[in-house]
Amino acid sequence: MTRQQLFDTILEKRSFLCVGLDTDITKIPPHLLKEENPVVEFNRQIIEATAEFCVAYKPNTAFYESMGVKGWQNLQETMNLVPENIFTIADAKRGDIGNTSAMYARAFFNKEESGFDFDSVTVAPYMGVDSVSPFLGFDNKWVILLALTSNEGGKDFQFSELKSEEKLFEKVVKTAHTWGSPEQIMFVVGATRASELSDFRKIAPDNFLLVPGVGAQGGSLQEVAQFGMNDKCGLLVNSSRAIIYASKGEDFAEKAREEAKKLRDEMDILLDKYL
Amino acid sequence: MTRQQLFDTILEKRSFLCVGLDTDITKIPPHLLKEENPVVEFNRQIIEATAEFCVAYKPNTAFYESMGVKGWQNLQETMNLVPENIFTIADAKRGDIGNTSAMYARAFFNKEESGFDFDSVTVAPYMGVDSVSPFLGFDNKWVILLALTSNEGGKDFQFSELKSEEKLFEKVVKTAHTWGSPEQIMFVVGATRASELSDFRKIAPDNFLLVPGVGAQGGSLQEVAQFGMNDKCGLLVNSSRAIIYASKGEDFAEKAREEAKKLRDEMDILLDKYL
Repeated sequence: MTRQQLFDTILEKRSFLCVGLDTDITKIPPHLLKEENPVVEFNRQIIEATAEFCVAYKPNTAFYESMGVKGWQNLQETMNLVPENIFTIADAKRGDIGNTSAMYARAFFNKEESGFDFDSVTVAPYMGVDSVSPFLGFDNKWVILLALTSNEGGKDFQFSELKSEEKLFEKVVKTAHTWGSPEQIMFVVGATRASELSDFRKIAPDNFLLVPGVGAQGGSLQEVAQFGMNDKCGLLVNSSRAIIYASKGEDFAEKAREEAKKLRDEMDILLDKYL
Repeated sequence: MTRQQLFDTILEKRSFLCVGLDTDITKIPPHLLKEENPVVEFNRQIIEATAEFCVAYKPNTAFYESMGVKGWQNLQETMNLVPENIFTIADAKRGDIGNTSAMYARAFFNKEESGFDFDSVTVAPYMGVDSVSPFLGFDNKWVILLALTSNEGGKDFQFSELKSEEKLFEKVVKTAHTWGSPEQIMFVVGATRASELSDFRKIAPDNFLLVPGVGAQGGSLQEVAQFGMNDKCGLLVNSSRAIIYASKGEDFAEKAREEAKKLRDEMDILLDKYL
């Protein structure tokens, strides 16, 4: 999917919502456990209920890998259920030396070989340019590079002050600009405070930002839109648990739909106000 | 496996060799392609041929993920073929926020859930403490933290000069000491030059180091031993392509065995000299 196509989808759906498919078999409604494949059945109903209100789905691969081969099969079946016009993110946080990162790129982008045809994959920056560049060789596919993460440990290194008078995450963003264009690279930005987001926009004015910090992880959608939006929207705001676990009852899909619609309705207003 | 058990194995086998099972179906001997499962058959023969001379096996997960569900099955079957007394490394370079890293830890360490029972997993440090700590909650399991990688892009950020008068990788190592002991944490160190290794040993005197840079990636085994060894050996030196692709003919296992034996014989001498 191109940047323009993603923007068109956002305008059409009046939404920049990404739904995180972080499906944990110990947290899904108990009545689903009698299904032949509870995880896929849960995801199927979540996708059917929320597809109208979101522009992206983001399974975190860890939730699937924890179930071994079966989990990998579940991820495969889940991705086959996502409608075609919805952007897909493999939240895998991969990164390795060049020839090995090329294998990861094939794992997520090369359907013939791996069965997966994601639009994008999250990548960790620690190993530098050759850990990222193999992913950029695929047309209309995206790297979503970890820049500023919202977890406690994010502060351990990402905010390290460099002698070059910048923080490490700023160096990551500036360096990534030399690797690929805003048509190829997005950034993970766990910043939800106004000042952090406006500062981030100064160094990445054109890139889409994937913002994980709304919903169960806290964060104000209004501030994200006010300080993070650019002229192509430039935002994908993720919500996982607040949507997919909105109810543990038989009405989980209906409640997920309500939560997704609520966020879409807010986003509709914010698009009017800040785009 | 505990540090003492690993050291005992090294002494017994007179080897600190790790064999990288980076099996690429496009590179294995053509005669294997007629087998029902070429990748697993290749790995089976490689393991049988080299187990006598190595103390660890390290599959890089990217090579398996590139084949999708089938690849994950191959990894599972491969790990079931590794003899019990050999240390196993999931070279997966994972790392995520706390609750998600806990899923990754289960993916590689919790056999009941995922089918995998690796001794260790490689982890990327960018997301800090909570991306690492879930792996440390498993008895006698290890985190092998990326510190100094040998690839070109390793220089992009790992050598960044911090205001605290240290390089980023040094901060990573020093910070990791506050997370876990040398009984729990090893470091990936792609340094093969004498000066780099001795400097690294100053900040991590007791930890085992996983050194990838010998064999196809270059690097002198003699210098690694001289400047990297500590009183528990403290080294796992990996070789992948130089062993597993030593021949593309029907004699590939025999040639792999010869290459592994050659390295073991060198290591035997180096253990005598520097331990």
